[in-house]
Amino acid sequence: VSKQIEVVITPALLPLYKVQGKTVVVIDILRATSTMCVAFKTGVAKILPVSTPEECSIFKDFDFLCAAERNAVKLPGFDMGNSPFEFINPLLKDRSIAFTTTNGTKAIKQSKELGAAQIAVGSFLNMEVLSAWLKHQPNDVILLCAGWKDKANLEDTLFAGALIDQLQNSFETTCDSALMAQQLYLGMQHDLEGFVRKSSHAQRFKALQAAEDDVRYCLQFNTAPVLALMQGEYIVNATPQVAE
Amino acid sequence: VSKQIEVVITPALLPLYKVQGKTVVVIDILRATSTMCVAFKTGVAKILPVSTPEECSIFKDFDFLCAAERNAVKLPGFDMGNSPFEFINPLLKDRSIAFTTTNGTKAIKQSKELGAAQIAVGSFLNMEVLSAWLKHQPNDVILLCAGWKDKANLEDTLFAGALIDQLQNSFETTCDSALMAQQLYLGMQHDLEGFVRKSSHAQRFKALQAAEDDVRYCLQFNTAPVLALMQGEYIVNATPQVAE
Repeated sequence: VSKQIEVVITPALLPLYKVQGKTVVVIDILRATSTMCVAFKTGVAKILPVSTPEECSIFKDFDFLCAAERNAVKLPGFDMGNSPFEFINPLLKDRSIAFTTTNGTKAIKQSKELGAAQIAVGSFLNMEVLSAWLKHQPNDVILLCAGWKDKANLEDTLFAGALIDQLQNSFETTCDSALMAQQLYLGMQHDLEGFVRKSSHAQRFKALQAAEDDVRYCLQFNTAPVLALMQGEYIVNATPQVAE
Repeated sequence: VSKQIEVVITPALLPLYKVQGKTVVVIDILRATSTMCVAFKTGVAKILPVSTPEECSIFKDFDFLCAAERNAVKLPGFDMGNSPFEFINPLLKDRSIAFTTTNGTKAIKQSKELGAAQIAVGSFLNMEVLSAWLKHQPNDVILLCAGWKDKANLEDTLFAGALIDQLQNSFETTCDSALMAQQLYLGMQHDLEGFVRKSSHAQRFKALQAAEDDVRYCLQFNTAPVLALMQGEYIVNATPQVAE
């Protein structure tokens, strides 16, 4: 029997799906899951997703760096916000990070609460490593788009479509959202950046006069080739080591 | 100030949008809103959308014809199900119909409960009349895809995209779902039927060995050029009369 794959275009719809026992890939292209991949490439030890800025700041007392973003803006008093450029800093090596964002960390926690067997972090930056792992792990897969405040967004759906396209020979799907996401990606793959710049979130960045470079950065393929998986309460670097 | 247009890809997300004072176009291509257009072309006087088959059957005592569908199948004991072919019958002329379907009539009732100023019925069969009316009415517009049991589906999203494409010079949008639907339509417009036949609902029809012809029928442009609007509890034929 083939493994099944589905796309859930916003976390608001996740309760309609059977999550128990499945592998959930959480997708928040702008920017939480892209930034997490960058963090692990930099050498971060582990990331603790937390729900609120208040909860996040508690971890300052426990030798964590604390990163908090709401509405695309870094919150005052925290070490980092949610820009991938903040996570390239070599001082982050071997550190633990408590992390809260508007959409991405919420989607991760929701997947855990609904009983996902595995939770992986997906972005263009780690697409190839992720898809190779998805092919060989045994579970049915849900691609969960973090969206924007429970609405669907363009960039997460587009990446879900790219991943569906790459995985199509290894999975079956009867999911219309998967078909639509794939078709969207196939239609726009030659101008991903132009298409994503039309999105509501890119427009939001523009209005903030911040993070415009982040859009281009987060649309690069395989520049942070890490496998990031949830283990217990943490997201960790689980990249397979190639024997020398 | 330009009028705004948004796409809501499943009724489960409608509570995230401001509906009050807007015009909602309910879209259930396979098949409720397509079938309603056919009914008005046939000369039906009015359609009463009701929530349950039990409620629907009450209207048998009041000179209504009663149509009820669940899970793509006509329910036993009713005059009609939800196939457009059942509504071509000239005996339906001037009759009133009580109508309940899995997704479409629910989306209509939900729009009313959330305070829509106007509710229109959208399908490929009445697309041109509908879009001409939408351009000239004063309200912001929500295109509400009825979907399948609160999940998004392909054919409703595709029609929303066709309508967005036709209306783009008359409305503004900052809605990612509208951008995605339009892009999906533009990519697939030369093979709508081939694309829709891949959808979960077309596959569902195939499994039932029924209603396969309905797919082709419901993808015709402007073959039932009626404007169908909610007035009070009823959907009525509000097609503008052209002066002779």
